[in-house]
Formats: sequence, structure tokens, C-alpha cells
Amino acid sequence: MRELRGIGVGRGIASGPVLRMPDPLPEPPATPRTADADTENAAVTEALAAVAAELAAKGAAAGGDAQGVLEAQAMMAQDPGLVEDVASRIKNGSTGERAVFDAFAAFQQLLTSMGGYMAERAADLGDVSQRIIARLRGVPAPGVPTSDSPFVLVAHDLAPADTAMLDLDKVLALITRDGGPTSHTAILARSKSITAIVGVSGADELSDGTIVIVDAGAGLVTVEPTSAEIASAETRTAELKAIVNAPITDGALADGTRVPLLANLGSPKDAAAAVELGAEGVGLFRTEFLFLDSTTAPTIEQQQADYTAVLQAFPGKKVVVRCLDAGADKPLSFLNDAEEENPALGLRGLRALRANEQILRDQLTALARAQEDSNAELWVMAPMVSDVEETEYFVAIARELGVKVAGVMAEIPALALMADQVAAASDFVSIGTNDLTQYTMAADRMLGSVAAYQDAWHPAVLRLVKMLGDAGRANNTPVGVCGEAAADPLLAVVLVGLGATSLSMTPAALADVRAELLLHTREEAAALAEAALGSRTAMDARDAARAVVSARSH
Amino acid sequence: MRELRGIGVGRGIASGPVLRMPDPLPEPPATPRTADADTENAAVTEALAAVAAELAAKGAAAGGDAQGVLEAQAMMAQDPGLVEDVASRIKNGSTGERAVFDAFAAFQQLLTSMGGYMAERAADLGDVSQRIIARLRGVPAPGVPTSDSPFVLVAHDLAPADTAMLDLDKVLALITRDGGPTSHTAILARSKSITAIVGVSGADELSDGTIVIVDAGAGLVTVEPTSAEIASAETRTAELKAIVNAPITDGALADGTRVPLLANLGSPKDAAAAVELGAEGVGLFRTEFLFLDSTTAPTIEQQQADYTAVLQAFPGKKVVVRCLDAGADKPLSFLNDAEEENPALGLRGLRALRANEQILRDQLTALARAQEDSNAELWVMAPMVSDVEETEYFVAIARELGVKVAGVMAEIPALALMADQVAAASDFVSIGTNDLTQYTMAADRMLGSVAAYQDAWHPAVLRLVKMLGDAGRANNTPVGVCGEAAADPLLAVVLVGLGATSLSMTPAALADVRAELLLHTREEAAALAEAALGSRTAMDARDAARAVVSARSH
Repeated sequence: MRELRGIGVGRGIASGPVLRMPDPLPEPPATPRTADADTENAAVTEALAAVAAELAAKGAAAGGDAQGVLEAQAMMAQDPGLVEDVASRIKNGSTGERAVFDAFAAFQQLLTSMGGYMAERAADLGDVSQRIIARLRGVPAPGVPTSDSPFVLVAHDLAPADTAMLDLDKVLALITRDGGPTSHTAILARSKSITAIVGVSGADELSDGTIVIVDAGAGLVTVEPTSAEIASAETRTAELKAIVNAPITDGALADGTRVPLLANLGSPKDAAAAVELGAEGVGLFRTEFLFLDSTTAPTIEQQQADYTAVLQAFPGKKVVVRCLDAGADKPLSFLNDAEEENPALGLRGLRALRANEQILRDQLTALARAQEDSNAELWVMAPMVSDVEETEYFVAIARELGVKVAGVMAEIPALALMADQVAAASDFVSIGTNDLTQYTMAADRMLGSVAAYQDAWHPAVLRLVKMLGDAGRANNTPVGVCGEAAADPLLAVVLVGLGATSLSMTPAALADVRAELLLHTREEAAALAEAALGSRTAMDARDAARAVVSARSH
Repeated sequence: MRELRGIGVGRGIASGPVLRMPDPLPEPPATPRTADADTENAAVTEALAAVAAELAAKGAAAGGDAQGVLEAQAMMAQDPGLVEDVASRIKNGSTGERAVFDAFAAFQQLLTSMGGYMAERAADLGDVSQRIIARLRGVPAPGVPTSDSPFVLVAHDLAPADTAMLDLDKVLALITRDGGPTSHTAILARSKSITAIVGVSGADELSDGTIVIVDAGAGLVTVEPTSAEIASAETRTAELKAIVNAPITDGALADGTRVPLLANLGSPKDAAAAVELGAEGVGLFRTEFLFLDSTTAPTIEQQQADYTAVLQAFPGKKVVVRCLDAGADKPLSFLNDAEEENPALGLRGLRALRANEQILRDQLTALARAQEDSNAELWVMAPMVSDVEETEYFVAIARELGVKVAGVMAEIPALALMADQVAAASDFVSIGTNDLTQYTMAADRMLGSVAAYQDAWHPAVLRLVKMLGDAGRANNTPVGVCGEAAADPLLAVVLVGLGATSLSMTPAALADVRAELLLHTREEAAALAEAALGSRTAMDARDAARAVVSARSH
């Protein structure tokens, strides 16, 4: 028996036979065209239209976030600039396949060189190119394989179209070689509650038909397990199912200490689903979606209407809204110029808003008005805040414009290091563990080669969380967590042990976290935190916390 | 009287009339060519050759780091791809000027899109383009203005060619609108001991002939000063001159506490100058220069010879060598692939070496052999280390290969947060304040729009330095500083107060730091540190430390 390790998403467990994602199509040869240009052009035009239609149809079937991604891909396949470039390459002697390959590759390179958000779209473009070439060649597009019986899907990584189209009745679990806990695949898997382990470096060695157990909670793939191991996994699956079906209660520890469980939301239309899963409010409402399609900032009135829609979905509940968090990696034409070499370290968040204060003022005005139009409890926070000077700047403007509760995100290490001053100046603090980990470890959270660093279990990150928790307690200032870390059930307990007073997560994770919290008292949470803080690495910290749990249950 | 604030480089002070750098040449009009192509081509060929020759001559005259930069620019002017592109544009109807403008702009864009090190070269290419167009037009190239009497040069920013050609007898001081403390201009100004203030947002309002006092120590430009102010500045200039001419002693505080003052070096040829300025050894010897021109890593024998050359320049002295620090922003073809969206947060330093362990092993082997060939005291350290696990990995390999003293750089916030564990596992720690500040503040140190964050005076950075200093003291592990912060005299005292046991800097800063240390006891240094740690911002910390000094001297 062998074991492979990776980064588990959630704590699902599943077992079954491996089915591998096919390799990408080989590069079309650069041989001269033999068919005449018109015939070749017609074939390409047909393929482009068919792929665009197919992607749009997939999008309509998938709905939700996936629909937007797939519709964007459909538009890429019909992009006039690309279509023209393909035609010109055919005219100059290329075969249709090669012309598509080259034109898309050139455009991909351009996007990659633009960096940031645009660079991420380059992968989507590659996927579209593969689909068109497959169609021209009359072969199936590489993608999720199909099977009559359920399987564990193994891939290098998944394109958005792949993840959106997973047949949940057939796909027992996902194993990917690439990606980290905040990669696209991990985030989508989490939001769809698919058992997944990403960043499994040995994944290439798994071949079709091999039986595996995928234990996301342990980040462990067991290859060719014994029947006893399979039986144990099945028992655990049943237990987890029971948790999901357990009655929804307010978040609390075993000793009754309340830990409100909130939802991270990106759009008003996700509010209903969050309420259904028992969200006690919203811990992170991202406002970027309101701005992304605009060439100018939306008016105060437009914003007010949108904020009111969210607040009204949570009557009497807390809703924490984050002000516009734009940077060169998510550029807004009226706010950022996109030329930054390291956009993650650029003019973003509050820095960009301070340089364009009217946009901040309009947003805060709209929020204050929406607060009057509903009976939800509105809290407003600023992203990318460095220290108490910036905290006071934001809190003062928010108060001036009528916002009742104003706070800051803790995602820059400096802010955590200055927590004693910040907690005294802010109504609340919300820890964004994704960025906090990225900066503390100096490792890009979107970059595969350093994905292992993106782990909020690292004791360096936990020590910063403790500084924030201690400062919060000393000043009676609430300190919530709204990063991915809050969705990891055992880490959620550790965060509470470090002083977090609420946890916000993707709604799909609420049931797991709720169940885990109910297993630990406050004292036990502190003991888990203590064990993790003294560890050497993220893996050690996770193991140390598990050891404390095991020692107690034996 | 008005004051402008910016980021001072060193603590020189100077006064005199402003002379502004001329604006760049206007863009050549895209009108069709009227002269015949051959005539136009001949003129361009002559201009390219003349500019190349001029840049090469300037390089030879300047020597040092500047020579390399200028020779690279000379090569750009003769790049066959560019020359061909210009000719083809002329053939297609462009004027010579426009062809040069367009060809260079296209190449510049390409470099910019490649990001990192290549993108920085784009500005140099722009400078070459301006020189060629000026020559074609028969006007002087924009650049450092000349005057019979001394002046304070005011510019948006300076190209490397400009800085290299400054006539120190005429240029009293520099004021630039752009740039931060680690920008190209600041680093060159520091290495040439030119009084400079960078990032002065009001610099555009200074007009030719206006009298200013430039006080780099205070980061303050006084516009139209009174005669009393000028007299006071002149007194201070005389005092500073006395410091530079003071006898060279070993670094120490007023109470005799030794604080070895070391040099940051990038090449063996700089060793003699450092010794002359009183460097007691080398605190940071960068090894990248050995690798930059290679498509494969240099052999063990080549490296051994170079390391031996450095060690032999410091007989009986400490020489701290940093292992290869390559990342996607300084790519080495055999080590990194250059496609990273945030190269500062990428696979770099020890991370890249661990992924290519043979390169690390060869370098350590060469260093261990060089250590045997000299009687200098060799210390070897790894860049970009995150925690004790990575520390132990590096120290174990270094020991295995015969290196006697092995340590780590503290530049990732996580390492400082884990200082208690790291200091116990490492022979020494060296704090790289430039990167430590960049990551702690989450602000790119090369990006103008966030330059104000790149200030190691920020109490968040100082708190991390304190963790390292405390851990060093508890474990009897030396903790040096080798970032730019050690070259700021008052900050150097604060760093010693926080526990730094040695300071390494550009040799030009040694005299200033030596003089400042001699003014303070250990107890006073601790009091300065305490005042800075409790401050709110970098500016507050600087002011708080100055206030402690002033209070004592009154």
C-alpha cells in the first residue's frame, strides 16, 4: 500500500477507481496547407461557431459562477480579432488547425504578458483553442472523461469548463497534480462540496482503474487500500452525511460559547442559498462585482439599490461589506493603471481608494443609505490596510458619511504586527487569511510552484492571528476570520482558540465547521491553538492539533 | 517659505539654485518620408553608431557599475534586430526619426511585457532612442543640463546614463519626483555619496534658479530659505565633511560596545574600495554576478576562483557570502522559468535552489574549498528562507559540504515570526531589510506608487527586527543587518538597540554610520528603539527617535 499527500479541500472522503483526464491534443504540424483557403476557412468558421454554441449551452446548463466563465469562453471563440487573425494565417498558407493554434497562442501570450486577471484568462483561451482543434480534427475535445460507473477523476489541473461540467453522480472525488488551497479548482470544488485533494505531486503515477481512497480531511490518497480501509472510509462517509443532514443550529463550541457562522458572498443572488445552509449573516460581502463591467464607477443610487438587496436578505442579521478591493490584478479602468510588475504588492485596496477618494466616499454614502433602508446590521470594512494611521483614515470617513460600524481587514502582516494600536481604533477587525498567508510567507497564492506555502496552518500565520486575537480581547474589539482557513473545520477550532470571535466561509462549508465546533470546548480550542503555535511548519501544526484531539478521544 | 518632503538618501545637506532636467523630446510626427530611403538610412546608421560610441565612451569614463549599464545601452543601439527593424520601417515610408521611435517603442513594449529584470531595461532603451532621435534632429540629447556654476538637479527620475555622468563638482544635490529609497536613482546616489531626496511629489513646482536647501537626513527641501537657514546648512555641511575625514576606527557605540561595520559587495573588484573606506569585512557578498551571463551554472572550479579572490581581499576578516538569489525577476535560464505573475512572491532564493539542489551543492562545495584557500572567516547564508525546517535543510547541506559557519537571511516575515526556532538552528541570521519591508508592508519596493511604504522605519518592520534580535540574544546567535536600513545613520542606531550585532552597507555610507554610532551608548540605542517601536508610522518612528536624541542634547 502506498500513500500520496496533497492539500485536501474540505473533509470529504470517497473511494473508487481512478479515471484519468486525457492529455492535451498534440500541437498541429506547421506543414503548408494543401486544401484551398476558402474550404479551410469555412471549416474553421463552422468549428468556431459550434464551439461557441457548445460553451454557451454548457454555461446555461451549469448556471451560477460557472455560467459567466463559460460565456466568456464562448465569446473568445467568436472574438473578431482572433477570427480575422486565423483567416489571415490561412490566407498566408497555414492549415486551419495550425492557424487556430498559432492565433490563439499569440493572443494567449499577449494576455499572459498583461499579467494579473488577464493572464488567468489565458488558460481559458487555451481550453477554447483545444476544443476548436479537436472539432476540426473530428476527435473528442480533451475534457472530463465519461464512464458508466462512478470514478475518481485524476488530472493535472481542471479548466473552469471541466469543473462546471462534472457529473456529481459519477465523479466520486478529484485529485489534481497542480494547484493550491486557493486555486481555481480548489475554490470551485469547495463551493460544490466535491471531495478533492489538490497539489498531489505523485498524481501522475495513478493509472486508470487503480482503486484509491481520497481522504480530503487528511490530505491523503491511499492507493490500493485493503478492504478494511475501504470499510472504514465508508463508515466515515456515512458519518459525514449525517453531519450534513444534522439540524442547523447557531455556531457554538461544546461548552455553549457562541461563534457566529457567517457566509462569504460575491453577489446578492447567492444570499438565499446561504440562508438555507444556516448562515447567521454575511462575514464578507465583496463589492467588486458592482464595478467590474463599468468604465466609470456606478452611481450612488445604483450601489444603494444593490446593497439594499443584500441587506434585506438578512433581516436583523450582521452583514459585513468590504469596500472595493481593486488592484492591477483585478483592474478597474477608472481606478487602476494595469502596469505593475507585482500586482499583489501594488496600489490596491484602500491604497487605491485613498488615491481616488471620491469613489470611496460614494461607496460609503451608498452603504450608509442602504443601512437606513433595511433592518440588517451593516458593518463596513476596508481591504489592504497597513496600520493604525490608515485605519483611522478609513474609520473617520466612514463615520462622517453615516456608517455606524467601520473596521479593517487584516491581510497585510504589518497590520497584525500593529494589532495593539489598530484594535483600539477600529470597531472590528476581519482576518483575510488568504492574503495574510501569501504576504507572511512571501509566496504568490496563485502560483503552482509555491502552492505549498499557501497554508494558513503555518505557525507564523497563526502567531499573527494570535496577535490580532489578543489585541481584540484587550480592546473588546470583535476579530472575525473571512479567509479560506475558516472553512477548514479543525483550523476553524484553532482560530477560535487564538481569539477569533466569528467565522465566515463559503456556505457549502458551514455544516462541517458547525459540526466540528460542537466537539470542542473553549479550553480545548486554546489547547489546539497552543500546540499549533509551537509547531515548526504548517504540516507539523496540523499534525500537532490532530494529536491533541486524538489524545483526548483515547 | 515652503517645504517639500521626500525620502532622503543618506544625510548629506546642500544648498543652491535649481536647474531642471529638460523634458523628453516630442514624439516625431508620423508624416511620410520625403527624402529617399538610402539617404535616410545612411543618416540613421551614422546616428546609431555615434550614439553607441558615445555611450561606450561615457561608460569607460564612468567605470564601476555604471560602465556595465552604459555598455549594455551601447549594445542596444547596435542591436541587429533593431537596426533591421528601423531599416524596414524606413523602406515602408517612415522618416528616420519616426522609424527609430517606432522600432524602439515596439522593442521596449516587448521588454516591458517580459516583466522583471527585462522590463527595467525598457527604460534604458527609451533613453537610447531619445539620444538617437536628438542626434538625427541635430539637437542636444535630453539629459543632465550643464552650467558653469553649481546647481541642484531636479528631475522626474534619472536614467542610469544621467546618474553616471553627473559632474560632482557642479551637481550639489539631486531631487527627483519619482522613486523610492531602493530605486535605481537612490542606490546610485548612495554609492556615489550624492546628496539626494527622491519621491518628492512637489518637485515639479521647482523652477530654474529657485534657491533650495536639500537636507537628505530630514528628507526635507526648503524652498527660498532665509540667509540664517543657509548659514546653518553650511555649518552642517562642514560638520559632515569633518565626519567623512575623521580617522577610520572600528565600529562601536559611545560606551565602547563593538558593532562591526561591514560592506555589501556585488563583485570582487569592489573589495579594495571597501577596505579603503574602513569596511571590517563583508556583510553581504552577492553571488548573482557569477551566474548572470551563463546559460549553464559556472563550474565548481570557476566559482572557487572567484570566491577565493574575494576572501583573499579580507585576510583575517569575516566575509558573509549569500548563495545565489535568483527569481523570475532576475531569471537564470538554468534555474527559473520566467513566467510568474508576481515574481517577488515566486520561486526564488532557497526555494529555487532546493528545486535545483545540484546548483546549491556545487556552490557550497566551491565556497568550502575557497575557505581552505584563504584565511578569511567565511560565513555562508541562504536567501528567502521561511522557517526552521528550511533553515535546517540549508545548514545541514552546508555543513555536509564543509562550510564551517552557515546561516539564513531574514527577509520573509514568517522567518522573523519564527525567530525563536530559527536562531537556535542557525549559526547566524542576517536581516535583509529591503525585502523584509516589502513583504511586511505588502508593497513592491520597485513600484513608485507605493514607494512611501518602503521604509524600514515602520514600527511593524522594527517589531520583526526586535523578534530576531531577542531570539539572537537568547540563543547567543549573531544577528546582522545587511539591507539599506543599515546605511541610515539614525536607523542604524535603532537597529543596534533592537539587537543587531553588526551592520553591513554600501561602503560609501560607512563614515556616516560610524560617526553616528559613536554618539550613542547601548542604553541610549535601546531608548531610541523603544520610542520607534511604539510609534504609529514610519514617519512617526523617525520623529520619535529624533525627539529622544534632541531631548538628550538639550
